[in-house]
Amino acid sequence: MYKIAVLPGDGIGVEIVPEALKVLQAIALRFGYEFEFNEALIGGAAYDAVGHPLPAETLDTCRNSDAVLLGAIGGPKWDKLPVQLRPEVGALLPLRKELGLFANLRPSVLFPGLVHASTLKEEVIDGVDIMVIRELTGGLYFGEKKREQTSDGGQKATDILSYSTFEIERIVRFAYEVARKRGKKLCSVDKANVLESSRLWRETVNKLARDYPDVETSHMYVDNCSMQLIRNPRQFDVIVTENMFGDILTDEASMLTGSIGMLPSASIGGEVGLYEPSHGSAPDIAGQKKANPLATILSAAMMLRYSFDLEEEARLIEQAVRTVMEEGYRTPDLMEEGKTLLNTEEIGDLVAAKI
Amino acid sequence: MYKIAVLPGDGIGVEIVPEALKVLQAIALRFGYEFEFNEALIGGAAYDAVGHPLPAETLDTCRNSDAVLLGAIGGPKWDKLPVQLRPEVGALLPLRKELGLFANLRPSVLFPGLVHASTLKEEVIDGVDIMVIRELTGGLYFGEKKREQTSDGGQKATDILSYSTFEIERIVRFAYEVARKRGKKLCSVDKANVLESSRLWRETVNKLARDYPDVETSHMYVDNCSMQLIRNPRQFDVIVTENMFGDILTDEASMLTGSIGMLPSASIGGEVGLYEPSHGSAPDIAGQKKANPLATILSAAMMLRYSFDLEEEARLIEQAVRTVMEEGYRTPDLMEEGKTLLNTEEIGDLVAAKI
Ligand SMILES: CC(C)[C@H](C(=O)O)[C@@H](O)C(=O)O
Ligand SMILES: CC(C)[C@H](C(=O)O)[C@@H](O)C(=O)O
Repeated sequence: MYKIAVLPGDGIGVEIVPEALKVLQAIALRFGYEFEFNEALIGGAAYDAVGHPLPAETLDTCRNSDAVLLGAIGGPKWDKLPVQLRPEVGALLPLRKELGLFANLRPSVLFPGLVHASTLKEEVIDGVDIMVIRELTGGLYFGEKKREQTSDGGQKATDILSYSTFEIERIVRFAYEVARKRGKKLCSVDKANVLESSRLWRETVNKLARDYPDVETSHMYVDNCSMQLIRNPRQFDVIVTENMFGDILTDEASMLTGSIGMLPSASIGGEVGLYEPSHGSAPDIAGQKKANPLATILSAAMMLRYSFDLEEEARLIEQAVRTVMEEGYRTPDLMEEGKTLLNTEEIGDLVAAKI
Repeated sequence: MYKIAVLPGDGIGVEIVPEALKVLQAIALRFGYEFEFNEALIGGAAYDAVGHPLPAETLDTCRNSDAVLLGAIGGPKWDKLPVQLRPEVGALLPLRKELGLFANLRPSVLFPGLVHASTLKEEVIDGVDIMVIRELTGGLYFGEKKREQTSDGGQKATDILSYSTFEIERIVRFAYEVARKRGKKLCSVDKANVLESSRLWRETVNKLARDYPDVETSHMYVDNCSMQLIRNPRQFDVIVTENMFGDILTDEASMLTGSIGMLPSASIGGEVGLYEPSHGSAPDIAGQKKANPLATILSAAMMLRYSFDLEEEARLIEQAVRTVMEEGYRTPDLMEEGKTLLNTEEIGDLVAAKI
């Protein structure tokens, strides 16, 4: 029996999360598990209900669960709020910190039959399978912030970027373990020619590399990496990098395949992992049953793998999604001639039926 | 009469710079100007000769000139030096600071006939014409750096990211002036949902926007920008951003068209502007007359425009490059069937002959 905190959130979040629960129920049925789903408010929905995007009860629900399944957060309705109350920042950042989610995993995979969805040429994108691992609880995001007056009547604003050996070691070790189970290539991305934090990062990677002789280690500057992802994305297996660079590079990498509606994510490190689709709350299509729930369903698969160590079950979900795609079923975001259009619930039903 | 400091640097730098000088000579001849070229050492070449990548005499030569033309810097030979002596960091960063080059301009343009060079699909990339303007003397690059011991026997490394109203205003005003002369759209890129420096940046842009009602102002988060550049690059006209984000985004943008051998850059703001190709020193092809000098030639055109206010002459060079491309001449980096292969000098001669 596993306890799962369920946070649908805003926009299409409330439509896609139920589809992932359907699929988890199918797994429960087939393998004789029991999943207890405890729903809680987060984001704009929570702000509207109780005045804060991350209510204390929600945090408690997460802490008392074995894992968290999140839909999506935010929307134009809440964009004018003070930054600490805005759904994304006011909920996501404290949630990451409180749950100790120092490792963010975002795969960027080309699904068969979806080559056309990419803005990149088929021969460049074919076979891409990258895992970007982003440090998620350090760096500029959580450094001290300051605002001062300057003598010329203006202001000066400051952010601090710090990393400790401890913080770097734990994320890099984690990345090595992931690389070991994949293509055995780890590319560490930094700006060691300019930043002191990146120099410590690189030194630490070089020290740890000795413990993973079976994994090929390389270093790349972040500016070069942002080019190489476009020039030849197939050169990458696992990428590991610090928080701010990871924010930029995970988004860039997720755009390569053109099907962000298919890409899950996992944030782990503490006792409770958090799983959510890579895409946002898409307020423009919310409430229309047009949303693609597959990224959320694949996030549930990541939950089984990383939080519950249920590898076989995770693969079963991933295979079910692949089969549904191969059979030509599509939500509107990926629809093309000759395929069969389904709505959010219909495609969720289909995946669940394959389990 | 204009005095130009000429710094060929390393690798292909020594091959491509003479081609740009050829073209400048052709301009001098046609319009009756005189260019005085004062060559100086920089980068690995300077380190080998006098033990520092930016000798004091070189800095003096730059200061006593009206503009600087740089080739390229660096190579594997010097990669193991302490970071302050490494060609790129030890020369470029102090040069930017000493000459007050706070604005880095990097156009990303698709040249006719080069659509195939991109890894992006033709319909996505056709007509792309973006100018990325990067703040070049502030932020993480020039903030204080620190290394401390931690109580667990490890270390902690820190970099500081600061921006003042003054620094933001001057680069953003500059960007508005550029946008005014182009598509009249300015997209300011920041991470205002997380960084205090970005919040001051955004506030400052919003204040200045009132002075430029003829330019359409928008804001975009850096992670989203790294996606949008791939998803739909044609949405952008001028992008303005801080130093570190600019480092990443200029490189990403320059890769979109697939012909980085064609892309110039300008670094300006002080009394003397610096002009150099966007590409590096390409040690793998150095000395083989294979290098594409067109980015350097186009950098010379930017020099005429931004340092000498010679717009007509700048356009003449740009048109000459375009004509040579249209006539089907190519260096090896862009060679394809049906085109005529030229070496570095031959294509330089051709461009000069068109002037
Ligand atoms: C919403 C924002 C604070 C967040 C981040 O920058 O981490 C988002 O961009 C992400 O990548 O999850
Ligand atoms: C060499 C390096 C210090 C430099 C930078 O980061 O600014 C380079 O990447 C650039 O963009 O000119």
